[in-house]
Amino acid sequence: MRADEFSTYLSGRASEVDAFLSSRLGEKTLPGERVRPPRLLAAIRHGVLNGGKRFRPFLLLETAKLFDADDDGALYAAAALECVHCYSLIHDDLPAMDDDDMRRGAPTVHRAFDEASAILAGDSLLTLAFDLVTDEASGFDGETRAALANRLARAAGLGGMAGGQALDLQASTSRLDEAGVMTLQAMKTGALIRFACEAGGVIGGATDSQLDRLCIYGEKVGLAFQLADDLLDMTQSASVMGKATGKDAAQGKATLASLNGEDWARRKLDEFVSEAEDLAKSFGEAGSSLAGAARFVASRRL
Amino acid sequence: MRADEFSTYLSGRASEVDAFLSSRLGEKTLPGERVRPPRLLAAIRHGVLNGGKRFRPFLLLETAKLFDADDDGALYAAAALECVHCYSLIHDDLPAMDDDDMRRGAPTVHRAFDEASAILAGDSLLTLAFDLVTDEASGFDGETRAALANRLARAAGLGGMAGGQALDLQASTSRLDEAGVMTLQAMKTGALIRFACEAGGVIGGATDSQLDRLCIYGEKVGLAFQLADDLLDMTQSASVMGKATGKDAAQGKATLASLNGEDWARRKLDEFVSEAEDLAKSFGEAGSSLAGAARFVASRRL
Repeated sequence: MRADEFSTYLSGRASEVDAFLSSRLGEKTLPGERVRPPRLLAAIRHGVLNGGKRFRPFLLLETAKLFDADDDGALYAAAALECVHCYSLIHDDLPAMDDDDMRRGAPTVHRAFDEASAILAGDSLLTLAFDLVTDEASGFDGETRAALANRLARAAGLGGMAGGQALDLQASTSRLDEAGVMTLQAMKTGALIRFACEAGGVIGGATDSQLDRLCIYGEKVGLAFQLADDLLDMTQSASVMGKATGKDAAQGKATLASLNGEDWARRKLDEFVSEAEDLAKSFGEAGSSLAGAARFVASRRL
Repeated sequence: MRADEFSTYLSGRASEVDAFLSSRLGEKTLPGERVRPPRLLAAIRHGVLNGGKRFRPFLLLETAKLFDADDDGALYAAAALECVHCYSLIHDDLPAMDDDDMRRGAPTVHRAFDEASAILAGDSLLTLAFDLVTDEASGFDGETRAALANRLARAAGLGGMAGGQALDLQASTSRLDEAGVMTLQAMKTGALIRFACEAGGVIGGATDSQLDRLCIYGEKVGLAFQLADDLLDMTQSASVMGKATGKDAAQGKATLASLNGEDWARRKLDEFVSEAEDLAKSFGEAGSSLAGAARFVASRRL
């Protein structure tokens, strides 16, 4: 898949995810719910329906597709994953955390609304993720839905993404070595990207060996993703990125790129992408969109 | 069950929940996790292992017991429910929300640690809840685990507890009428208490008619719980409660007790308790601990 074809395909997939999320985030209540407070709903929508590329949902949908899994069903898990990602951005942007005013070129949720709304919007999105992933409307059996929820929780929690953010907050006061940075990034950004690929395999009924390969693919993509992000933070202006840049250095935070230099980072990025491509191709022609995703990570901001 | 017998029984059940949570909140990672950052883990433990009465887990365990469900398995869901409750307290106490310094006689998590740790501790606990409730180690089949997670998410999310907290934050600026207060309380405190009773039924394989009765029992207990809380806020000192009191009036928040007066509230409280007792007794001798729970709600602080 050529880069321009890939971009078009990625956008189309993002539209599917957006349509699903927008519909699910309406005023209509579902069984077990009472009313959806309008201001909180608006804050949630602001934090989710913001033109994101939906790269994590893309990985989930495409890994599920390797096994001809039902696409409409996979959308529930894909949307759930995006909810977890967006909740983490909303909370990470809070004044007590990274204190960011802008996100994807727009005011962050606590700037557009208020801190309480941002906290509750994040909480609601995290909760919604587990609603979606366990929703029987996905058509998946109970074992699959429970397994997806359980793996998502492990990837997102104390020993995964949330723990990674805690390590990141400490990183500006205690400078990390390379191993420390690797652990932090594997948790903060790697865990959800890995889950995306793992979840597609779970949905598709992958064998253990296939699941292993998908997880390694996800890890390589995660590493490439983070290196690309480090490089962008080092070299790009805030206006290009739509959010603050140069923050790692300003906060004294070590990254793999800053520890090893830009040249090393670019070489290593190519290496991770190449390894991920090979893993994707091991699934034959069906893996071409995943190979494209690996190259895409290296070529542009996400 | 006499009041003193009930108290002893409740304490014993709380010890089971505490032991389970303390064990699960150790340094040991589970599959899908990397490391558990010590400071975040300490913040989480501070917010959970704080001598709570574990009333919600109690309701869940006792409704499951009506159907002779496996007690060790039910403990997973009971602990999950307590995680959701504790996460909500940690976030509600934040400066941007209710701004409370004390909780159960000890500093709140953001006072004992810092705001970022409190936000992440709450996030991690909410995530852990869905890990626990979908953990195959509970021994429940996938359909049961997925159903529990889905109902918990609906009770805790935008159309449930989190939405109720959003309504509560608005309530100090726009004074609510009785219907508004009822909706707010049904969401903020009622939804999780109702879920506790519903979940026990789901675990136990209750019929639809039994599930309905359990949900109504849970709603009545929730209403009694809230009225008792309103009355305590009106009449008790902070030193007795271990947290700030008189806050509803100070913040101009309407409660059912303030709208209708103390006498009305005491009569209505008795009525809800009596209705809940009758529903509990409809399950025969096995319902005696649930009848005791309804009386307990009215008689003391929780």
